[in-house]
Amino acid sequence: MTAVKAIQSVQLDDENNTVIILDQTLLPNEKVFLHLSTPEEIWEAIYHLKVRGAPAIGIAAAFGVYLGTKQSKASTYEQLLDDFQKIKQYLASSRPTAVNLFWALDRMEDRLKVEKDKSIEEIKNALKEEAEHIRNEDEQVCYSIGEHALSLLKPGWGLLTHCNAGTIATARYGTALAPIYLGQERGYHFKVFADETRPLLQGARLTAWELQEAGVDVTLICDNMASIVMKEGKVQAVLVGCDRVAANGDTANKIGTSGVAILAKYYGIPFYVCAPLSTIDLDCPTGEHIPIEVRKAEEITTKWYEKPMAPENVQTYNPAFDVTDHELITAIITEKGIAYPPFTKSLKHMKSV
Amino acid sequence: MTAVKAIQSVQLDDENNTVIILDQTLLPNEKVFLHLSTPEEIWEAIYHLKVRGAPAIGIAAAFGVYLGTKQSKASTYEQLLDDFQKIKQYLASSRPTAVNLFWALDRMEDRLKVEKDKSIEEIKNALKEEAEHIRNEDEQVCYSIGEHALSLLKPGWGLLTHCNAGTIATARYGTALAPIYLGQERGYHFKVFADETRPLLQGARLTAWELQEAGVDVTLICDNMASIVMKEGKVQAVLVGCDRVAANGDTANKIGTSGVAILAKYYGIPFYVCAPLSTIDLDCPTGEHIPIEVRKAEEITTKWYEKPMAPENVQTYNPAFDVTDHELITAIITEKGIAYPPFTKSLKHMKSV
Repeated sequence: MTAVKAIQSVQLDDENNTVIILDQTLLPNEKVFLHLSTPEEIWEAIYHLKVRGAPAIGIAAAFGVYLGTKQSKASTYEQLLDDFQKIKQYLASSRPTAVNLFWALDRMEDRLKVEKDKSIEEIKNALKEEAEHIRNEDEQVCYSIGEHALSLLKPGWGLLTHCNAGTIATARYGTALAPIYLGQERGYHFKVFADETRPLLQGARLTAWELQEAGVDVTLICDNMASIVMKEGKVQAVLVGCDRVAANGDTANKIGTSGVAILAKYYGIPFYVCAPLSTIDLDCPTGEHIPIEVRKAEEITTKWYEKPMAPENVQTYNPAFDVTDHELITAIITEKGIAYPPFTKSLKHMKSV
Repeated sequence: MTAVKAIQSVQLDDENNTVIILDQTLLPNEKVFLHLSTPEEIWEAIYHLKVRGAPAIGIAAAFGVYLGTKQSKASTYEQLLDDFQKIKQYLASSRPTAVNLFWALDRMEDRLKVEKDKSIEEIKNALKEEAEHIRNEDEQVCYSIGEHALSLLKPGWGLLTHCNAGTIATARYGTALAPIYLGQERGYHFKVFADETRPLLQGARLTAWELQEAGVDVTLICDNMASIVMKEGKVQAVLVGCDRVAANGDTANKIGTSGVAILAKYYGIPFYVCAPLSTIDLDCPTGEHIPIEVRKAEEITTKWYEKPMAPENVQTYNPAFDVTDHELITAIITEKGIAYPPFTKSLKHMKSV
């Protein structure tokens, strides 16, 4: 792998028994790396969204359950398993809706059980190895998505992205931002437009920040400026991440994504979804089956403001995600390659290889 | 006229020698009416955007130049004209880019000159009459736009609007919001969705506020939620105001308007522009000839926030307006009626009748 500048938001410092986490709640104003050594500290970091992004949360939990178990004084497998499960259960309670969190912790437990006949020391080393695998696999997935996506882009292009599907949400590189980091290293000189992504401003606070840190040419716009930027010929491709892709290619992602896709279609600009295979859910036939979380008014009306910016008690509608129709998507890019329409066929094939 | 609840943002209290202005800078947190009696106070109110919206500014200036001239101790026409012109020039400096401001002041001067052979008292009364004409004509224009637009809407419809083309920007009723106020009075029970309209949040601070004050069912959304609201069948028509309409129907309006129009087209929802004839510029052939103001980064990155919401020195692109292509517009509604495509023909006809 080349020396891409993308920041790593979760790292293990095994020698000092710490997980090093970039505190995302302080971005973009402060760049603080937290050195966490107890399950309690890691629980707190996940709970307070200091680490966010499904893959990054899973990695933090894997490192956390390893470090906790490493410090166990158990002398038998049963004692160690008991200690492990207490820590696992505790960490799992930090963010009860995060599927990746449970997935990573279950995987750690499976590994522990596989090693049951080994010595305590060997089991602890196996847990470390497993946590590092989880992390490294995610980095490899992101890197591969980046390579495939980059093959669709040309040097000098303007790229638009929405929300944050970046390095700080993953082990490294991100998904939608992975080709941008790889291109940066290879002299592609992309000009990136980052939608600020209301109401939680992940584009302004996180995407603009991490790309700027990496030296990428990034321009922050409000969400409603995507149309004029496209009309003025400043954008040659749109890259977004995703939360879940249905079997027909319908894609749930941060609120506003479907609007960007409609604009891209209108202006004849390709619209690419960067999706790890783990987010493609063949059991979900279409986007209509994906439930949309509706969140509180205060995110729109008061959050982060010095004073309320809307009348008191105004009605709001605050869906956190929307579904982009598969007809609006040019291609879905996974770690295994690029899926083109008809997605029902291409996604099924991609999951089976 | 029926007793529509729409707030009047500029009123003359001749008996007490004051202009009463709703201080829009304090919205939505405080509803304060300022009682201004000197040209200095009115200058300050315009300069600090306490009164905003092209028609409302023109009306405030007309009332201001009248009140100032009324207090003149001139005993001859020449002295009065001299006093008038000093006040006029002074008020014109309050917002040097506001065309309506100059238009209203020029119209007041024309009237004064027409009355030159009358007594000082009669001339002062004529100025009062002229200022009231300017105000009443604007109210009538808005009311007529409201009537014509309402004929296109059905009771119970969901309506989406962008930015603030409301009562507080005009003498009364507004342009895009005029049919909503008239419908409200007539039991149409519209459900209005107000885009918050980043970066300056006119939708959240002003539109949501004035509609809520009038008892209209209004729901505030972020700009990037317009797509999901349309997709879910919640919107049957889009209504927007405009800053300038070219001869072919291309329409300049608040940034984001063109994106809403593209979404409406995609979802098969009619997109209506409410435009006083004064905003239709037949000398401007197409939208390409309309210059777009690009504003400062701080509106996106720091304004109103407790802390910066974007990395320091991040590049931004902050166009204040965009141009909606005429092909995206279902109809343009003026005080004289409804113009349909081809607009080159229908707008020319409307301006000539």
